[in-house]
Amino acid sequence: ADMSQGHISVVLLGATGDLAKKYLWQGLFQLYMDQVSSGHSFTFHGAALTALEPGQRLMFDVLKKLACPPDESPNRCAVLKDQFLKLSQYHQLKTAENYTVLNREIETLLRQEGLQEAGRIFYFSVPPFAYTEIARHINSSCRPPPGAWLRVVLEKPFGHDLESAQQLAAELTSFFREEEMYRVDHYLGKQAVAHILPFRDQNRQFLDPIWNRHHVERFTSILPPLCSGRISFYEQYGVIRDVLQNHLTEALMFLTMELPANVSRAEEVLQCKLQAFQSLRGLEKSSAVLGQYQAYASQVQEELQKAQDYISATPTFAGVLIHSDNLRWEGVPFLLTSGKALDERVGYVRVLFKNRAYCTQSETLRDAGHSQCKAKQIIFYIGHGALNIPAVLVSRNLFRPVMPEGSWREAVVQSDLHIFGQPLSDYYVYSPVKEREAYSVLISNIYYGRKDFFIATENLLASWAFWTPLLDSISHQPLRLYPGGVENQHLLDFEMVSGEVAFTLADPVELMNPNRLMPTDYRTIQSKFRQSPLVSAWSEDLISRLASDIEKTASRTVAHSGQFHLALSGGSSPVVLFQRLARHHYAFPWRHTHIWLVDERCVPLTDTESNFFSLHNHLLQSVRVPYFNVHPMPVHLNQRLCVEEDRGTELYAKEIMALVANASFDLVLLGVGTDGHTASLFPQSENGLEGAQTVVLTESPVKPHQRMSLSLPLINKARQVFVLVLGKGKHDITTLLSRVGHEPRKWPVSGVSPSSGQLVWYVDYEALLG
Amino acid sequence: ADMSQGHISVVLLGATGDLAKKYLWQGLFQLYMDQVSSGHSFTFHGAALTALEPGQRLMFDVLKKLACPPDESPNRCAVLKDQFLKLSQYHQLKTAENYTVLNREIETLLRQEGLQEAGRIFYFSVPPFAYTEIARHINSSCRPPPGAWLRVVLEKPFGHDLESAQQLAAELTSFFREEEMYRVDHYLGKQAVAHILPFRDQNRQFLDPIWNRHHVERFTSILPPLCSGRISFYEQYGVIRDVLQNHLTEALMFLTMELPANVSRAEEVLQCKLQAFQSLRGLEKSSAVLGQYQAYASQVQEELQKAQDYISATPTFAGVLIHSDNLRWEGVPFLLTSGKALDERVGYVRVLFKNRAYCTQSETLRDAGHSQCKAKQIIFYIGHGALNIPAVLVSRNLFRPVMPEGSWREAVVQSDLHIFGQPLSDYYVYSPVKEREAYSVLISNIYYGRKDFFIATENLLASWAFWTPLLDSISHQPLRLYPGGVENQHLLDFEMVSGEVAFTLADPVELMNPNRLMPTDYRTIQSKFRQSPLVSAWSEDLISRLASDIEKTASRTVAHSGQFHLALSGGSSPVVLFQRLARHHYAFPWRHTHIWLVDERCVPLTDTESNFFSLHNHLLQSVRVPYFNVHPMPVHLNQRLCVEEDRGTELYAKEIMALVANASFDLVLLGVGTDGHTASLFPQSENGLEGAQTVVLTESPVKPHQRMSLSLPLINKARQVFVLVLGKGKHDITTLLSRVGHEPRKWPVSGVSPSSGQLVWYVDYEALLG
Repeated sequence: ADMSQGHISVVLLGATGDLAKKYLWQGLFQLYMDQVSSGHSFTFHGAALTALEPGQRLMFDVLKKLACPPDESPNRCAVLKDQFLKLSQYHQLKTAENYTVLNREIETLLRQEGLQEAGRIFYFSVPPFAYTEIARHINSSCRPPPGAWLRVVLEKPFGHDLESAQQLAAELTSFFREEEMYRVDHYLGKQAVAHILPFRDQNRQFLDPIWNRHHVERFTSILPPLCSGRISFYEQYGVIRDVLQNHLTEALMFLTMELPANVSRAEEVLQCKLQAFQSLRGLEKSSAVLGQYQAYASQVQEELQKAQDYISATPTFAGVLIHSDNLRWEGVPFLLTSGKALDERVGYVRVLFKNRAYCTQSETLRDAGHSQCKAKQIIFYIGHGALNIPAVLVSRNLFRPVMPEGSWREAVVQSDLHIFGQPLSDYYVYSPVKEREAYSVLISNIYYGRKDFFIATENLLASWAFWTPLLDSISHQPLRLYPGGVENQHLLDFEMVSGEVAFTLADPVELMNPNRLMPTDYRTIQSKFRQSPLVSAWSEDLISRLASDIEKTASRTVAHSGQFHLALSGGSSPVVLFQRLARHHYAFPWRHTHIWLVDERCVPLTDTESNFFSLHNHLLQSVRVPYFNVHPMPVHLNQRLCVEEDRGTELYAKEIMALVANASFDLVLLGVGTDGHTASLFPQSENGLEGAQTVVLTESPVKPHQRMSLSLPLINKARQVFVLVLGKGKHDITTLLSRVGHEPRKWPVSGVSPSSGQLVWYVDYEALLG
Repeated sequence: ADMSQGHISVVLLGATGDLAKKYLWQGLFQLYMDQVSSGHSFTFHGAALTALEPGQRLMFDVLKKLACPPDESPNRCAVLKDQFLKLSQYHQLKTAENYTVLNREIETLLRQEGLQEAGRIFYFSVPPFAYTEIARHINSSCRPPPGAWLRVVLEKPFGHDLESAQQLAAELTSFFREEEMYRVDHYLGKQAVAHILPFRDQNRQFLDPIWNRHHVERFTSILPPLCSGRISFYEQYGVIRDVLQNHLTEALMFLTMELPANVSRAEEVLQCKLQAFQSLRGLEKSSAVLGQYQAYASQVQEELQKAQDYISATPTFAGVLIHSDNLRWEGVPFLLTSGKALDERVGYVRVLFKNRAYCTQSETLRDAGHSQCKAKQIIFYIGHGALNIPAVLVSRNLFRPVMPEGSWREAVVQSDLHIFGQPLSDYYVYSPVKEREAYSVLISNIYYGRKDFFIATENLLASWAFWTPLLDSISHQPLRLYPGGVENQHLLDFEMVSGEVAFTLADPVELMNPNRLMPTDYRTIQSKFRQSPLVSAWSEDLISRLASDIEKTASRTVAHSGQFHLALSGGSSPVVLFQRLARHHYAFPWRHTHIWLVDERCVPLTDTESNFFSLHNHLLQSVRVPYFNVHPMPVHLNQRLCVEEDRGTELYAKEIMALVANASFDLVLLGVGTDGHTASLFPQSENGLEGAQTVVLTESPVKPHQRMSLSLPLINKARQVFVLVLGKGKHDITTLLSRVGHEPRKWPVSGVSPSSGQLVWYVDYEALLG
């Protein structure tokens, strides 16, 4: 054989562990069989903490059992297996010294054999806590000489939330360059998943016109739980970290990202994937339905030796609704599901197309032919389920797909099967010519340096950034208990409405009751704050309630007077409210609403610090308020900011007088600062705390100092004033305000007291109770 | 019997015609049977042009054959039939004298019998050309005395387009008051259709949350052709006038209009229906697919004795896609279909709900229960088809409907039937306790004065106003030929994309070729106009092309420089373009587009005469241009209009300089006036034709006189300038412009000549060829 391509040393860390036994050695053997004539030479180094002799014994017990693939001639395989065993050796890798020795051995071998070094693969099949230590040793002692590459292969979990993932990534980055790291999502080695991008690429001509929100009805994706045996892992991670955050998210990205010009260039794929992450809409508590199967709690108690009163809050079932805000997919639901103890183990990624057809012929005839009125779908079938082979299915009324000859072929399948409501004969069904283990595929991809099959650091962090807010918000969420198997019946079916999901059936009696007061228990604690009505709840519920109340006021006001004048405050608290209004209140009478600003910073409107800019970003650009009804404050006149002689305040006051009857806004939304300020009226302000019902320029103690604001007397003319107070940071001022009287010069918000309108306080539990 | 309720005289005009024979006399007899004990007395007057004796004979031949309904005791029916015959008499009604005599006879009878007159019903079962004459006679000679009512019943057709309907309505209105006229749409007497509003009313609790675009996937409605025998009528009217403009439209309105508080108050129903018409989006050529069955042409030739080379352009099949712009139904397709020679005669109105559910359980189980993943629908089944009875069907996974006891009951039906893809057992199926002929129902409704079952004048005109533009635009449209019956196969299936419909299968070879050049033949006539590229087509195609070209320019420019500066003109021509851009160009990069005005009238921006107002109405409110990127001209400053010292022109010029690189717009869209003006630059204008690249105030010869406009030198800095010229009215100026040189003082548009940009003319055939 031509040895000119050089030598590759493969080091498998954790060589005697479960994963290595079950998949990795077999995968390495497969690599050897495939590449023995490639021009590379190989050595395989198993490594573990175990001492040399017992370790050696353990490892060779595994190697002896390596199987010959059915498509390989037994003779050739036997010869190659023999060679493979000879090329393999065991090392104890525990101390820094061990690594230095390993390195020396590799160098010696190369020198003796007169081989050029091509590269080294280090496969980390070890628990994540060991990563840093090993990485340090490899970096300091085992790097190949210049000109040869280093590839380190990492297995999940890669953290359990954004912070931990960032930390782990930072540590690894201090030892390895990005191109040296291969993070395995073995799901990406599943043949059907690995073929998503090539399929999109090879079928561009058919998919281009229909791969958008006008044609796609929904994406759904489901996968059985992966580590069903390991309760200790599962109890810490739960269904979302186990399957959704990684495997299903990756598959979804492959489906929905913009298609790079070259799908095998890892860098292009990564950029498109990151863009796709960018455009995902943030998840909220209501984006998911969660369940736990009834026997799980006792399994945990037993296996983890927990006390009888231990309650597991780990979800074993999740259905999550994801939306993208990019123009291609706006409004198209992406549904990800996984669960233990469902009635069927099945894994697929499915694209259902909209039925845009109207079929004139009668139904009886319609069922006979390839009618456009039949469901149109493309399914990447991972395995299990009724079909039980990896496959790509395309409805025959869509198109005959282009598939790579040699590696995929039309499958001969049981014809009376029904898949997704249709007989299998309605589909073109392709399956791989050779079924290959995911790990074989992955190891081959490592060999070829196909980084597009692995999870780049940026990719990993983008995924955690996306999932972490949901994981945080559901940690106290009640879980629906389900019996498991066929007894689940419709208990786990769920429905989408207005961007949220909820179980279809009403809550059964048994709901998990986490050790925490539920919002409904709290709500009656107090009903007045400073002599005015108080609404209180956890922040997310409070925002929902406030948004509904604003919509109700708006609808009532428009029905009565034809228009609704709403004055909104800046700051961070209202952002969540704006988003809620934009995404959940389709019936809001925006066309008849006028939007005013309560206060503004003296910066250009397009400055990210501008209140109006934030309002526009989070609300106005998503709803249909007529241009004429939008009234930003004129802080920027004659190319300068808030100069008194430009008379911006007068202009705004005139605009209010001209449009708002009696200058009484229908609704003013205020916030409160930790110093008791409201609007841009600060303690001891010279303007706006009393006097005329007008618009004023004020000074803020924090930057940008210059502000424009409605005055307190003008605010107090409103028909309704809602004050929103959120978060622990506001607890002190909230407590103080509950005690003090009318002292606007000390605490401007204490001067809010509508002369003939109504004042309502919306204060979340954290602000109220600390 | 108590006679205190008074006497009713029913006069049936056209008493010996087909409709009278087949339905009307039977309906009147049914009325008599139902109301004989109501306290009213009756006489029935058949009338026609035939002389007394033969007429009498003809009429009594019909009356003798009147049938007894199955639910009536034969004895009672026989007695009543005898009485009915005695109460009926024939009159020749030809001359004015005849009507006077009829009136005198009614009066005499009433006097002799000592009866109080309750009212008179005149049923016009005569061709529409006879309406005016008869109406005049009734009005002048046959009105009942004060205190008694007059009801005239009119049969369709009520015109063949908006103009003729208006004319007919105006004539009738000169003889009758609105409340006296009962325009029959006998389809509204079909029991399933008549029950739509009561159903919506009685099931408000279930429907309220789901009767909107978030839940409804589509409305579909189909009806077999009605007058299949009468080729002469059909050849003039075609499928749209026969079935869609009236019956299907009415049924659609019942389904989609806002539900009045009281559904039996005709006035409330009418108001809601008119509102619903208001919010329908205008139909375009591309809103319909049209066909003609192959044998139709020869049938026409034969029956109407036309020459062999006569080509009928009458559609016998239509599928029409309707959209409503109201918030409830935005985006929900309404599909109306009817056709001769389809493979099945069936009539229904159907509401299909969105599938918002995700079912976790496996498919096999799912089909067994009442899964939320099964289709959800409500169907008003008019008759024919598989079911062959009037019925209301509601999917069992929706709700059990409230139905009026006594008149509707759960139907016992063949259980192995499939309706709309589901077994009948998936539905609650209700059918009327008594099946009643539509005409019996209608005659009973006339008797009860239930005007809500008839077509009010405003309603009729609203419907014609909606349909006439489509009828006009398709008069030269090619028709797809279809063989008829089961041989149609998928030939008439159609699909919706971006608000348009098209046949699913590619055009078969045989397409009707109307005696007119097709746009593609024309397009090559000329390719230059005034030395610049010319694009020409029929107006609608031209607008499509222009819109695509603008989108292409926009995408290219955004890809290159991150933003796109588009300056748009006012006037009427661009309105169609704005609508097209709003509705068909979902991929337009609006978020990165800046919108500028080429010119503006000196009126407030919210004035309907404002160019910006029109632009906002037809384009901006439907797309997502950021607030900051919208640049109306500052014609309204300091509460006054275009006052020079307010320096609006300077302000605008500064804004352009600040944002548009080199003050070169990426694209300027212009129009041309019949006087050769463009932008608001008029012949002999003092400003803007030469000199500085700036913004100017100008004077228009027509009101409002004051204008603001980009100057010609500024326009000529643009990178692209498109000039749009539409309509016959522009033919003269177009011809002139094709001959003259650069003479901006005479014809300002001749001065458009980008210094380094490109100029393209978009001129439609009418402007180009006259």
